[in-house]
Amino acid sequence: MGTLKKKLEARTTDFDHWASRRRYGADGPNNLRLWVLACMDERLPIDEALGIHVDTPVGGGDAHCFRNAGGIVTDDAIRSAMLTCNFFGTKEIVIVQHTQCGMLSANAADLEQAFRDKGIDTDNLNLDPTLPEQKLEKGAFAKWIGMMDDVDETCIKTVDTFKNHPLIPDDVIVSGWIWEVETRRLRPPTQDQEKRARTDTTAKQFGVSKQPPRWA
Amino acid sequence: MGTLKKKLEARTTDFDHWASRRRYGADGPNNLRLWVLACMDERLPIDEALGIHVDTPVGGGDAHCFRNAGGIVTDDAIRSAMLTCNFFGTKEIVIVQHTQCGMLSANAADLEQAFRDKGIDTDNLNLDPTLPEQKLEKGAFAKWIGMMDDVDETCIKTVDTFKNHPLIPDDVIVSGWIWEVETRRLRPPTQDQEKRARTDTTAKQFGVSKQPPRWA
Amino acid sequence: MGTLKKKLEARTTDFDHWASRRRYGADGPNNLRLWVLACMDERLPIDEALGIHVDTPVGGGDAHCFRNAGGIVTDDAIRSAMLTCNFFGTKEIVIVQHTQCGMLSANAADLEQAFRDKGIDTDNLNLDPTLPEQKLEKGAFAKWIGMMDDVDETCIKTVDTFKNHPLIPDDVIVSGWIWEVETRRLRPPTQDQEKRARTDTTAKQFGVSKQPPRWA
Amino acid sequence: MGTLKKKLEARTTDFDHWASRRRYGADGPNNLRLWVLACMDERLPIDEALGIHVDTPVGGGDAHCFRNAGGIVTDDAIRSAMLTCNFFGTKEIVIVQHTQCGMLSANAADLEQAFRDKGIDTDNLNLDPTLPEQKLEKGAFAKWIGMMDDVDETCIKTVDTFKNHPLIPDDVIVSGWIWEVETRRLRPPTQDQEKRARTDTTAKQFGVSKQPPRWA
Amino acid sequence: MGTLKKKLEARTTDFDHWASRRRYGADGPNNLRLWVLACMDERLPIDEALGIHVDTPVGGGDAHCFRNAGGIVTDDAIRSAMLTCNFFGTKEIVIVQHTQCGMLSANAADLEQAFRDKGIDTDNLNLDPTLPEQKLEKGAFAKWIGMMDDVDETCIKTVDTFKNHPLIPDDVIVSGWIWEVETRRLRPPTQDQEKRARTDTTAKQFGVSKQPPRWA
Amino acid sequence: MGTLKKKLEARTTDFDHWASRRRYGADGPNNLRLWVLACMDERLPIDEALGIHVDTPVGGGDAHCFRNAGGIVTDDAIRSAMLTCNFFGTKEIVIVQHTQCGMLSANAADLEQAFRDKGIDTDNLNLDPTLPEQKLEKGAFAKWIGMMDDVDETCIKTVDTFKNHPLIPDDVIVSGWIWEVETRRLRPPTQDQEKRARTDTTAKQFGVSKQPPRWA
Amino acid sequence: MGTLKKKLEARTTDFDHWASRRRYGADGPNNLRLWVLACMDERLPIDEALGIHVDTPVGGGDAHCFRNAGGIVTDDAIRSAMLTCNFFGTKEIVIVQHTQCGMLSANAADLEQAFRDKGIDTDNLNLDPTLPEQKLEKGAFAKWIGMMDDVDETCIKTVDTFKNHPLIPDDVIVSGWIWEVETRRLRPPTQDQEKRARTDTTAKQFGVSKQPPRWA
Amino acid sequence: MGTLKKKLEARTTDFDHWASRRRYGADGPNNLRLWVLACMDERLPIDEALGIHVDTPVGGGDAHCFRNAGGIVTDDAIRSAMLTCNFFGTKEIVIVQHTQCGMLSANAADLEQAFRDKGIDTDNLNLDPTLPEQKLEKGAFAKWIGMMDDVDETCIKTVDTFKNHPLIPDDVIVSGWIWEVETRRLRPPTQDQEKRARTDTTAKQFGVSKQPPRWA
Repeated sequence: MGTLKKKLEARTTDFDHWASRRRYGADGPNNLRLWVLACMDERLPIDEALGIHVDTPVGGGDAHCFRNAGGIVTDDAIRSAMLTCNFFGTKEIVIVQHTQCGMLSANAADLEQAFRDKGIDTDNLNLDPTLPEQKLEKGAFAKWIGMMDDVDETCIKTVDTFKNHPLIPDDVIVSGWIWEVETRRLRPPTQDQEKRARTDTTAKQFGVSKQPPRWA
Repeated sequence: MGTLKKKLEARTTDFDHWASRRRYGADGPNNLRLWVLACMDERLPIDEALGIHVDTPVGGGDAHCFRNAGGIVTDDAIRSAMLTCNFFGTKEIVIVQHTQCGMLSANAADLEQAFRDKGIDTDNLNLDPTLPEQKLEKGAFAKWIGMMDDVDETCIKTVDTFKNHPLIPDDVIVSGWIWEVETRRLRPPTQDQEKRARTDTTAKQFGVSKQPPRWA
Repeated sequence: MGTLKKKLEARTTDFDHWASRRRYGADGPNNLRLWVLACMDERLPIDEALGIHVDTPVGGGDAHCFRNAGGIVTDDAIRSAMLTCNFFGTKEIVIVQHTQCGMLSANAADLEQAFRDKGIDTDNLNLDPTLPEQKLEKGAFAKWIGMMDDVDETCIKTVDTFKNHPLIPDDVIVSGWIWEVETRRLRPPTQDQEKRARTDTTAKQFGVSKQPPRWA
Repeated sequence: MGTLKKKLEARTTDFDHWASRRRYGADGPNNLRLWVLACMDERLPIDEALGIHVDTPVGGGDAHCFRNAGGIVTDDAIRSAMLTCNFFGTKEIVIVQHTQCGMLSANAADLEQAFRDKGIDTDNLNLDPTLPEQKLEKGAFAKWIGMMDDVDETCIKTVDTFKNHPLIPDDVIVSGWIWEVETRRLRPPTQDQEKRARTDTTAKQFGVSKQPPRWA
Repeated sequence: MGTLKKKLEARTTDFDHWASRRRYGADGPNNLRLWVLACMDERLPIDEALGIHVDTPVGGGDAHCFRNAGGIVTDDAIRSAMLTCNFFGTKEIVIVQHTQCGMLSANAADLEQAFRDKGIDTDNLNLDPTLPEQKLEKGAFAKWIGMMDDVDETCIKTVDTFKNHPLIPDDVIVSGWIWEVETRRLRPPTQDQEKRARTDTTAKQFGVSKQPPRWA
Repeated sequence: MGTLKKKLEARTTDFDHWASRRRYGADGPNNLRLWVLACMDERLPIDEALGIHVDTPVGGGDAHCFRNAGGIVTDDAIRSAMLTCNFFGTKEIVIVQHTQCGMLSANAADLEQAFRDKGIDTDNLNLDPTLPEQKLEKGAFAKWIGMMDDVDETCIKTVDTFKNHPLIPDDVIVSGWIWEVETRRLRPPTQDQEKRARTDTTAKQFGVSKQPPRWA
Repeated sequence: MGTLKKKLEARTTDFDHWASRRRYGADGPNNLRLWVLACMDERLPIDEALGIHVDTPVGGGDAHCFRNAGGIVTDDAIRSAMLTCNFFGTKEIVIVQHTQCGMLSANAADLEQAFRDKGIDTDNLNLDPTLPEQKLEKGAFAKWIGMMDDVDETCIKTVDTFKNHPLIPDDVIVSGWIWEVETRRLRPPTQDQEKRARTDTTAKQFGVSKQPPRWA
Repeated sequence: MGTLKKKLEARTTDFDHWASRRRYGADGPNNLRLWVLACMDERLPIDEALGIHVDTPVGGGDAHCFRNAGGIVTDDAIRSAMLTCNFFGTKEIVIVQHTQCGMLSANAADLEQAFRDKGIDTDNLNLDPTLPEQKLEKGAFAKWIGMMDDVDETCIKTVDTFKNHPLIPDDVIVSGWIWEVETRRLRPPTQDQEKRARTDTTAKQFGVSKQPPRWA
């Protein structure tokens, strides 16, 4: 039986080490050396879907978890993945998109028009005011919104983009998955129409016409 | 006592309605009409920090939750917030950044140099290959990475950016918060050096020199 | 505070009454005055699917529950429903069939042939040796097996048969439901191909050709 | 520690396999390779009585469970048992009937008369309208109802019928049991009058005269 | 909010009062003012059988509980009941005997002979050495043992003895019950042979001949 | 994996054996081969005091438990112990009396007088009407009541009486214990006045004068 | 439903207020406005003994709890009580000493001698090196140790000392209690030898002679 | 399987031994041979802070726990530590002070003045009326109160005082710790201003001027 002094020293040291993990770069990774890209939708329960604990209340933490509208590739997603894969010890990327996604629910051109109707000039917006060096070509606003035609196609294209991106190390494992909101089950993305038919996976199912080309 | 038939009809209808929420646009919001912007770090437990349930395993879902490296404003964050606030019924934005953030742990210029050392031309990258219309001016790569000097400053600037952004409706409530990893408690961002001193909130504390200007 | 004697008298009387419910005919119904017809498949959890407790370990009991291969109408199902609806106080019928049903997995003609290959004369069988008065016309064996082409069609036809049967009182409420094994959710039977497409609801999906006509 | 990708592949594959068990015929049996024949009565808790889990909410499933009025042999019971024993890998049959059964509570002749009193011609009924090829001889209606004189005798006869039926493979194990509703315990069927005396096992105990001959 | 001093005074006083209940005679009764007479058999769970808590680990206590071989009337049972009913506030007597009782399992004459075979003179024993004033007539030893022919008869006779005993107040409520070990259920004592037949209630069922007369 | 048939046979057999334990005489003992003699007081929790389960709700049963007023030796206690030790396999006797016992709370002579005041002739009572052969000498009524002067003395004398009784086999282990109601702890009986002083162990502490001689 | 912003503001404010309670002096008291004086012994469970929560893991805190060897009055106890009663809002003092106390287990003179035997000059010690202004007269060392003759006497004297001390406000409620280690129950201090006799409350019971006078 | 008698003897003996631990001096230590010195504050949860169980409800007990205002060294603390370390088997001392301590919240001179304002002559007080031999020099009252300038400094000085005190054996391990009320975490005392800055560790942070010299 050691002294209490020794135990208290160990306890306080362990917590300090966990709390300052990021000081150790690639030697202070999260528990699963994992980066997750997922849609921000409230019907997509990341922990349940993947069987992990992204951020636990009592220490630990299995993954860095990036979420945006759609769970799609963007320059921000590349930025975040690039940081964790090159500098924070991450070795695997898992991408989760989902059926019934809001990104299927409207046409990007209509959304752009909605802003124009309010008097906003979508061709001359400083999208991120903290980074004016980043510019969007005139006419690309609707495409930028990122609405999808088909979530399975988008998921597959998203996986490919990460696999081939120059800022992502070649040995990072990348996989993509579809969470079916209707069945609360995970499945691989698929072009098999039968397997997808009863879930809403396409903009067409929302009565939405062909989106500006981004994922096709 | 109604018939079982009636009960089963109600049950299946309720689930269908929840599953297809996004079909109803602003009339099918998440439970708290809330959009959260947070860092992707595994030491930042969103549900505990905010006392909500972002995405629950058994239905429900309190918020759309955007997470990126830093929990900072980016064009992707603006895109995602713009969608939920204008089209999906969201009325409030809560931003959570945290101490001990990896975004304080290195100088963006050094990170850029690391890529250059590998032979990557950071001035000529198609950051998001699905959106070649989006361009970054030469020399802006390091700034784009988004490393911070001071997380409280960045949080305050992030709040301001959302409050003033033309794509975010004026009546959306915006607040920003710092999660202290060291104490596992939430606090408002502050310039009061005493309140911040014992947590790591600045790049300086990581031995990192002045970042490229983005949040200053 | 009454005497313990009174309490013990009440307790023993209550149990006796429950145990001898069937002595009271229509005045001793099950708890929900319900008769369930369901497939005998182990992947069809009746209590979960309907939100009831068919037979509880500690007294009670919500329903008389008939289960056979397919959950289909047969003379036995009519017999059992006729007894409970006319003589044991039942007022409602709920029918549950399910996707992935074994009744879709083979062609009845092939099954009959399998028996013939073993030397069994399927045209001259005393199917129920306790009831030789019941006869099956020559050539009807395969049809008798009851294999389905399409579980939704069979479910709808089953509901109709009960609604119109002379031995079932007109005021009995009848509804039919499909349990999706793949999603573990209940839905109404439907002809909407999209809603059914990703579940196995047809013999065709098992590579099985057109069944002998019974449910068409 | 394998990748999350591998774990997710295994998880989704396992579920798919379970959900599509019936595609594998005799190679996709239920967990106990068991077929249960039981009365549909709500006072007969199958799981408690047999110590199994017929259909579980979370996957699995120990048995195919056929239930009808009485838990007796009928052509439907033979049909269902024949399917599972010959084509779905089942190796054992357990039959459970119970005391206080409604099948003891009235005379079949009286039940037939009740229908006749309502103007129904019980000699000319298409019992199963989906299978007109199945016919019941005139005068056999009451016998068809299947009321019992003595549940123990019926149980023993039911076991014998299955043991000797040409459509049931010879190596299938068959046993029969009586659930005593009054004591909530299982026992073998018995002719020992003392062991049965305090439970209601005969129509006589319900004041019912000799039934049409079927189980005698 | 009172002072802690007041609370501690109340707490210690309450416990003292409970612990010294017997100092208050008829004003310090047990919780149900109940006296139970039961067999000492380990298969007779008093608390479960009566739905009470005879003696609880955390204070309280519903009944004074007398137990002897058989749960029969003896001078000791009269003594104990007389004390609680006249001097300790008890108002009700509940008597519980049980099936499968050891008191049915042998003939008292044989038991006496067993002692004689060991050289014990059963006619000249000081049964209770602390009370030599109590004497048993020669030849009464076997009768004294108290073996039963029929537990229901004994129970009924036991109830009657208490109802008519001069030392038991007339207004005390007395009831008798049989616990069926085989079914773990309580029932009133009965002469209805059918209701008793399947439990062992008589010495005859143990192959034991007529006992010395005590309960007949 | 055996058949369900085999499991059900084993289950029903085991229960039958337990239920009919007493048919096996010394080969069917209770679980601990134990006979307990205890006071009937509701403040004496036998299971807690001894760390056993006298009679469990779900089978089992550690002891035959005799309880009377005082937990004292009587002819009934000898009778019950004699039966279990000679004929039902019991090997050990544990005696538990307790402080604050009602048997200390009054003088037996006063209790006798209370009956005489009601007109009851305590010299001519048939104490156990079912056993008129048992007689109490005139003048012994008060002594028969069994009130104690000192519970520790009575406990020690009770142990000695059982150890030396001709009807109790010599190799039966006998021990005696005092349960302190005031402290809810068990202790051996003792003459050490200090160890007993703060609990009520004597009639004197109840203001009661010397009892008729029985335990002295 | 208010905004999450408002809820987070309230939550962080509440915690800050609790954490900085002592800034508010008499307006920031502990939950019960209570000061406890208790012995430091590990067999004295303060929370159980008093039914309070001195210091809870999740906020709150019922009392300021002073503990020393014996739970006796000392200048330190006066100092601590004086602070909380005059400046931190405390209104009640509860004193808990206990039986079996180590302060009864040796004579203070022997303890002093033990130090002298080691060469320590107990007449010339700077007892508290941080407060050399505090001096102990020569020859008072043994008395200073504070060993007791009788814990009940000491407890009563301790209560009196606090009630009459000029630094303790007159309206503070003071009560004293004895925790009996042997019975794990609380009682008031008492001179009634019977109530104390079976617990160790005096040095005499430890074979220890008369202590230097302090509590007599 | 031993006899119940043996088990009961062991049980009662074990409890007696635990209850009378202090009779064994250094051979009857607490479970961790530990003495804790801590502040009496209700926001300092000793068990949580140290991961021990000072005094458990069900036996055991890890430490002797001394608590006073501040958790500082006093003659009483030396007295208590001296007793346990020399005579009761203790081998380790752990000292816990805390941020936000009330001892930082006022200047001792002001507190003294508050008493003087009430007419109390703080130079002529018999601080401990039971020990008049202990005297405080005139003018030392404020210093005696023990208010701190800096809790880390005080903690370090407190540790040193115990390490060097002639009454504390040299081989006793001594360590000191600060509990941060604001973060509910333990840390070592430190002079590193950054690590302490956001917690209240100094009187200055309470707006309090330099204390009378005791800990400097």
